[in-house]
Amino acid sequence: MTLDDSYLQKFGFIKRETLGSINIDPLQTGGLLTEAAKQALMEWGDGYSVCDYCAGVLDLVKKPPIQEFVHGALPEFLGCDEARVTNGARESKFAVMHSMGKPGDWLVLDGLAHYSSYVAAERTGLNIKAVPHSGSPEYKLDPEGYGTAIEEVIRESGKPPALALITYPDGSYGNVPDAKKIASICHEYDVPLLLNGAYAVGRMPVNGKEIGADFVVGSGHKSMAASGPVGVLGVSGEYAPTVFRRSVHNKAKEIELLGCTARGATIMTMIASFPEVVKRVRNWDQEVEDARWFSSKLQDMGFIQRGQNPHSHDLMFFEAPGFYEISQKVKKGRYFLYKELKSRKIHGIKSGLTRYFKLSTFGVGREKLGVVVDSFEEILKKYEDV
Amino acid sequence: MTLDDSYLQKFGFIKRETLGSINIDPLQTGGLLTEAAKQALMEWGDGYSVCDYCAGVLDLVKKPPIQEFVHGALPEFLGCDEARVTNGARESKFAVMHSMGKPGDWLVLDGLAHYSSYVAAERTGLNIKAVPHSGSPEYKLDPEGYGTAIEEVIRESGKPPALALITYPDGSYGNVPDAKKIASICHEYDVPLLLNGAYAVGRMPVNGKEIGADFVVGSGHKSMAASGPVGVLGVSGEYAPTVFRRSVHNKAKEIELLGCTARGATIMTMIASFPEVVKRVRNWDQEVEDARWFSSKLQDMGFIQRGQNPHSHDLMFFEAPGFYEISQKVKKGRYFLYKELKSRKIHGIKSGLTRYFKLSTFGVGREKLGVVVDSFEEILKKYEDV
Repeated sequence: MTLDDSYLQKFGFIKRETLGSINIDPLQTGGLLTEAAKQALMEWGDGYSVCDYCAGVLDLVKKPPIQEFVHGALPEFLGCDEARVTNGARESKFAVMHSMGKPGDWLVLDGLAHYSSYVAAERTGLNIKAVPHSGSPEYKLDPEGYGTAIEEVIRESGKPPALALITYPDGSYGNVPDAKKIASICHEYDVPLLLNGAYAVGRMPVNGKEIGADFVVGSGHKSMAASGPVGVLGVSGEYAPTVFRRSVHNKAKEIELLGCTARGATIMTMIASFPEVVKRVRNWDQEVEDARWFSSKLQDMGFIQRGQNPHSHDLMFFEAPGFYEISQKVKKGRYFLYKELKSRKIHGIKSGLTRYFKLSTFGVGREKLGVVVDSFEEILKKYEDV
Repeated sequence: MTLDDSYLQKFGFIKRETLGSINIDPLQTGGLLTEAAKQALMEWGDGYSVCDYCAGVLDLVKKPPIQEFVHGALPEFLGCDEARVTNGARESKFAVMHSMGKPGDWLVLDGLAHYSSYVAAERTGLNIKAVPHSGSPEYKLDPEGYGTAIEEVIRESGKPPALALITYPDGSYGNVPDAKKIASICHEYDVPLLLNGAYAVGRMPVNGKEIGADFVVGSGHKSMAASGPVGVLGVSGEYAPTVFRRSVHNKAKEIELLGCTARGATIMTMIASFPEVVKRVRNWDQEVEDARWFSSKLQDMGFIQRGQNPHSHDLMFFEAPGFYEISQKVKKGRYFLYKELKSRKIHGIKSGLTRYFKLSTFGVGREKLGVVVDSFEEILKKYEDV
């Protein structure tokens, strides 16, 4: 292959087909940019844009106000003593695991944890003990399971796990676990707790201190209306010196952040959206009401909502017998739903899925959610007599 | 502190003061977005924008053409068997070090290596042996120094270093070392070589196979006209299975990438700029000519260019006795140069520097470089009689 002009035409500017759709993909709803963030994107898009006035430490840059954001606003927002901006929630988790644990140590996590928590632990060399959930239909997590898992680790390895992790909420069913209780149980064993709030921070109120979490992880591109990859990490005063330890080679640079993290449009879109993000979090009750309303409409169609019900989060998992039956009857059945939704400019249920799927109602609003509900009903009706 | 409306006014959209300046900061010149990248930024700015059609593996996404870019264009561009997009050059380096070395192993690197190479090694737990350079004024690196350093490591630790690293060029003097010779020496000892091309890939021709480098690292936001943080990593077929090993928990996910890396505007701006980046690399000889012309003009003013001279890169380090003398005479002397340049809309020499500074001529072009030269002359003249 040669990189000649004809081949290079594959690249350059590429249109985004899903732009303008109603997007109910859980990955997408909390990451849509605000108008301020769109403006920031154009202003700060160039590579190292925020570094023009940097004296060597990214989070101390005063102009733009990164220092105020990282050391003032963010700890307050997360309810943590210290905070940093990272390259993403998974990078935040890895930084904590890699600081708190050594290869061969143990991590206790919830059975609904995101794959990236497993991969971050694997990269660190940690053994994993998962706290079981109750299975279908509720996938409920009993906080006491953390005590049992920690005791098992102690029995097997002779010492408590280096860290515990709770996914708040999980990314499959949107279950919001009793994190406060879990924190209290972990602390009985002196095990620090990491709260993975990739689907919480920036959507719903999360306060590390109120929960008792030692680490709070959030995702900018998932839930803080920021252009990714970008995440946040809040740490208690007790563990901040460990996680934010500095290099012996360069005293200004924090090892786990490899010196600098988000240094362009990513952090500036996060800062641009921040005022609106703070405000939308205050509006969380309305979001939960919207989710429950949407769920009830789908249940009226014979769909079954898995996970906590009534639900407390915008991310929901449905079983849709009506769609599944159609898929069994029509030609190229498993793709009918995707095509029907696409023709209605609704995106977010993966192509090929009909029986089980997750979706998110976050920030979509009653009107557009109504369009989705009506579309589902229309589609069921259209194939009624097939 | 409370996050009330009045406090939140500190954030939101913030203007970028340096926009529109001639920017000769070496961090900035190669990261300026192309027009196609600016368009891509708006189109793909939302958090997880590229994931709408993802089936679980980011680098296999077909629409947008990430798969073609990562598995087709990028290996060809880097001259490597396999490639990935990462969260930045330092993240690429850490992924390689963390795959190739264990805590206590050794890394041999050039004495001009970037601090992030040191920090990545420290995060991995590697011991570091630096190959000395010749010091001022040339800071020349003798390739044979790699042989000496490797032998020292073998003598001290009983085995060869896990990895060698060469900075190509370094970020202080812009010296382009004889990487081919260094690779050949490292391979005599079976030590794999990482080429840190953060200031090369996307500016000048770099080909891992021609050089004999086992790993090629590049920076999207530094040198590939991409919105950061984003980087690239090329790996030889020999080491790809090690660096890109997959999770036991999730077979689709590569451990060192924590599953996914750049999944929004960062990769899409890299793809958008790629055709122009390929073309500008072909124009490298002109860039070197511009750098030499600029350097000769400054030398005519009595400035001394440190590092290789004649120079082979746009990043250059100068000693400016004329500016230093002025700074000794005028009030608040060390800030005079910054202010004078600012009033001429020239940015990139750090505030407070007058005697020693680095700068970059990359992509600035003769006309604007002429403005910088004329400004330097004007400033020298203005203070002649102070």
